[in-house]
This record gives sequence, C-alpha cells and structure tokens, in this order.
Amino acid sequence: MEETPAPPAFADMVEAHERIRPHIHRTPILTSAYLNRLTGAEIFFKCENFQKGGAFKARGACNAVFGLSDAAAANGVITHSSGNHAGALAYAAERRGVPATVVMPRNAPEPKKAAVRDYGARIVECEPNATTREAVCAEVQRETGAEFVHPYNDARVIAGQATCARELIEQAEGLEIVTAPIGGGGLVSGTCLTLSALAPEVEIIAAEPKNADDAARSLRAGQIIADDAPRTIADGLKTPLKPLTWGFVKAHVSDILTATEDEIVAAMRLIWMRMKILIEPSSAVPLAAIIANPDRFSGKRVGVILTGGNVDLDRLPWLTTGVDA
Amino acid sequence: MEETPAPPAFADMVEAHERIRPHIHRTPILTSAYLNRLTGAEIFFKCENFQKGGAFKARGACNAVFGLSDAAAANGVITHSSGNHAGALAYAAERRGVPATVVMPRNAPEPKKAAVRDYGARIVECEPNATTREAVCAEVQRETGAEFVHPYNDARVIAGQATCARELIEQAEGLEIVTAPIGGGGLVSGTCLTLSALAPEVEIIAAEPKNADDAARSLRAGQIIADDAPRTIADGLKTPLKPLTWGFVKAHVSDILTATEDEIVAAMRLIWMRMKILIEPSSAVPLAAIIANPDRFSGKRVGVILTGGNVDLDRLPWLTTGVDA
Repeated sequence: MEETPAPPAFADMVEAHERIRPHIHRTPILTSAYLNRLTGAEIFFKCENFQKGGAFKARGACNAVFGLSDAAAANGVITHSSGNHAGALAYAAERRGVPATVVMPRNAPEPKKAAVRDYGARIVECEPNATTREAVCAEVQRETGAEFVHPYNDARVIAGQATCARELIEQAEGLEIVTAPIGGGGLVSGTCLTLSALAPEVEIIAAEPKNADDAARSLRAGQIIADDAPRTIADGLKTPLKPLTWGFVKAHVSDILTATEDEIVAAMRLIWMRMKILIEPSSAVPLAAIIANPDRFSGKRVGVILTGGNVDLDRLPWLTTGVDA
Repeated sequence: MEETPAPPAFADMVEAHERIRPHIHRTPILTSAYLNRLTGAEIFFKCENFQKGGAFKARGACNAVFGLSDAAAANGVITHSSGNHAGALAYAAERRGVPATVVMPRNAPEPKKAAVRDYGARIVECEPNATTREAVCAEVQRETGAEFVHPYNDARVIAGQATCARELIEQAEGLEIVTAPIGGGGLVSGTCLTLSALAPEVEIIAAEPKNADDAARSLRAGQIIADDAPRTIADGLKTPLKPLTWGFVKAHVSDILTATEDEIVAAMRLIWMRMKILIEPSSAVPLAAIIANPDRFSGKRVGVILTGGNVDLDRLPWLTTGVDA
C-alpha cells in the first residue's frame, strides 16, 4: 500500500523557485504566426525543451535535491525512471556534488542511459517491470541510505514543476487557457498549484495520447484508472496518475483532451517545420489536441508548455513506421 | 559583362532597419553551456533560423521590395534562386501586395518550390544552368517590367542583411569575433558594412565548406575565383562572390576558415542535439570551423550567425550517405 504524501502548498512553489533559480533556465516564450492562423488561437509556447537537460523535469529534481539537508544529501539520491526525470535527477545531483543512482529497465534506449551517465550518475539495471524495479530501488536505498525522489508523486517535485506555470503567466499576459501534456501528472499538478493561486481565471486543459488516455478516463470516472503498458509514441506520457497528482487534477483540471498517434506526429512535425525547434513527441500532444478541437481554443490566448526536446535523431517518427512502444 | 553596382553606405543599413522592422523578427540570441565548454569560447548564436521564412534572407528581400516606389513595385519583382532568397522575395512581395516571379531550375527540391508558392509567387522553371536562367529572367523582366533583385550582388540586399549584425552587437555586448557562413557573400558583406562602422574592433571571420572554398581561395589570391557547381551539403554556400560582395570581403574579412562535409554534419547535429533548434547545413559551418580551430576562438566572445533553418525533414544528412550535391 502506497502512502499518500501531503500535497505541496503555494508557498512551497515560491520557495522552490528561489531555490532552483541558479540551476535552471527561465526558458523563453516563442510564438508562430503560422500556427496562430492555423488554429485561430493566439498561442504562447513555453519552451522547456530549452531547459537544462532538455526538459522541465530539471525544475522538480533540483528542488528535491537542493532542498535536502547536507546530511541527507550526502547519502545521495535515487529514482527509477527511463525518461527525462532520470537525467534531471542526475543533473541536480551533479550540481550539488552528491551521488545519484537511477534504476532503469535494461532495455531502456541507449541515448537515455548516456544522458544519465554524462551527468556522472550510476545506473542500476533491472528487468522491465514495476515489481523488480521497486525491489531493486528499495535494495539500493537500504544499502546507501539514498533519498528516493519519485518522478512525480512527490510534493517537492510538484512544487518544482509548478515554477514553470509561474514564469509562463509572467511572460505571457492575459492567458485564458493553459494546456500541458499529462502522464503521471507532475507538471499538470504544479500548473494547478500555481494557477489556482495566482490566476484562478485561467482554464487548465490537459492533453493526452488516445492510446494512453488513462487520465481522461480517470477524470470521467472520478477515480484513478491505471493502464498496463500503454503503447504510444509519446513515451513520457505512459505513466499513471498517483494519489498526489490525482488530487490536483480532479480539483483543477477542467478537461483532458486526447490525440491520436498520427495527430501527435503531425503536430510534432509542424512545430519542427514552422518553429524550427526540436520537441519530443510528448510535447506535441497539446498542439495536436488544439488542432483537433478548434472550437475550444479559437479566439483564445493559450499557453502551451513544450515539455521537452529529447529525441533520438536517428529515429524520427515520420521516418519510421508504426508506433514506437 | 556584368555592371558593378555602387556599394551600400552605413546610412543605407540604418534606413533599411527602419524600413523592414515591421516585416521581420528581431531574432533572439541563444547560448549553450555545453558548446561553450566544448570550444572554450563564449558563443552567442544569433538565431536567424527563427526569422520570417526561416532565414536571414527576409531582411535583404524586404529592404529591396519596400524601398521601391509604388510605380516600380506595381510591376512586381523577379529573381533567380533555388534557395532561401526565393522564399524571402516571395514573402516580401506578398507583404507589399505586389507580384513576384522566381526563376528556378526545374530540378529544384519540391519543398523549396512549395515555400515560394505558399507566398503566392509565380515560379518559372528553367534548365539548371546559368545561361538559361539569365535568359529566362531577362525575358520575364522585358515582359513585365519587374524589378530584378539579385540574391546578394545588390546594394539594397546587402544593406538589409547588414541589419542582422547590428542587432547581434546590440544583443551581445563585448564581442571580439563575429563569424558567419560565406557563399555569395551578401550576409558577410552586410556584417562588414555594419561592424566596420559600429564596432571596428570586432574581427570578422567567415566560414565555408572545404568543398566550396572559392571565397577562401579568392581572399588568398586577391581576386574573385569562381567554382563551377561545387558539391557540398551546405547548399546555400555554393554561389561565387560577385564584385559588390568581393569589395567588402577583401576590405574587412580577416580570414575564411573551411570545414569538411563530415565536420559540417557533426556540427549541425550537435546544435540540434544540444540547443534543440533546427538549423540547415550551411548554418553549421561556422561552428564546425570553430571546433576545428580551437586556438583561434578559445577564450573569446564570439558571435555566430545561424543563417537559416530550412531543412527537408525527410532527408536528414546523418541519415543519408554521401554528399547531397
């Protein structure tokens, strides 16, 4: 039985922002006249693909790592992740000069492993299933006393991700909707935390792959629904909601829109082509949802969080066939 | 015998900047901690890949088109180009609401033709050689009275490109070197025009593919050397210097460094990977030259103009073999 940690408060976001400021970028907002014409909306893209480590995850990881006491930090940090949180935690630990361990499935993509190793973290491989992963993680914790930092079901992590929405509303005034992709819900929860306090008039709409629509179904059902190993190209969005993130989502998210795999790839390519920036598939889901639901966004000022830019340049989705699951 | 037009003066750049301001982006500067560590230099990337039409060429084309009298503009404009100048002139003409004709070799890549058509310009196809191209161009000029706007051997175009270096030195203080790719030399000439007046202490170093090193050989020989159809992936840099650009280059460029095809592709991929932005091969040549010549740049504050981001996403150079000539 997992314990439900206490949710972060607004003051935790403010404190997080001060704490992580030396270690993260205040990423820019970009706009595209073409995409505005296409969607009828005025879209402000918050470019977390330019963030340290190539994804917003540096915010939460830095807040968790730099919030530790010196004594606790000395034992290092540990997480399980095959995605951007792994690299982000490795980055944060390297900045603080403490050891980091990442438990990764042995079939994780080599570029993801390389990113973790580049920041000097130790990788412990495990079988690609949740039971083994958690057992291995617990074992390393017992051995080292390392602090476990969950990718999203962690108040420190959510408070860190919440700083992104704060910058967004400072940089783009008068937003009517903010939309972000939802996987485990850490970024969306942080967005809820910030906007419910600073800009409660802004509607929060999450976006999700139709092939991994567990959050949308959870919102309709009024309880967490978790899928087993969904298949989608948006590999950052396969994780289920957890109690902490579910609390924010059910309280503040007005809708969760979905997009097909083809719509996600098309939106990704459109952003590459028209904005000349690299985003990963997960980051394209909000634009895909906007294009698929013009009536919801037309005429509105919309903030879109581009969550990351870590792609395998040897395997672009429009050059491969089928879904990369 | 080609006539040598009068070179633009500094005041022409100032006037150009006022004229084109409503039609272009003041593009941002990006930096990369990783690339600074790699090169030992402090590099400020001027992101003209984010410019209207995806390349700096919008500056020169807009200056030429918006500088015409209403009577002259009414007859339209014409150029020959299979690259970014074609799209830029089409963009400028559409903004002014006058017709544009672009003479393109019939084997020009379809994405380049599409960009021109998207801006409402007319494409006249010709055989892929200089003689036919000029004959077709002259014929259309006779028929329509359209104003010919050369891609770079044109004082209005050079004055427009010169506005890029002005923004660069306003946005990044204390530069010691500015480096840009050189093909026909329009951008480099504009850079010379601006910096020789506003920041004469800044060294101007051009960069060129080794496979199309006609400008480097021209500088050594003290006269224009033109190659016939050089083969390089940096397709924007195949054109030879012309009298107007040669005048600026010989007076103000201290050196022209070269990079191999492999070095260009590696630098391009590095910028994509680390900066999460799309640049075209030509734009990668300066970074390739910096990496190949660390002693020239280490410890220096260096401005690099990223000239454009128009790439064929279905044909990335690291996924194909050999040189795309």
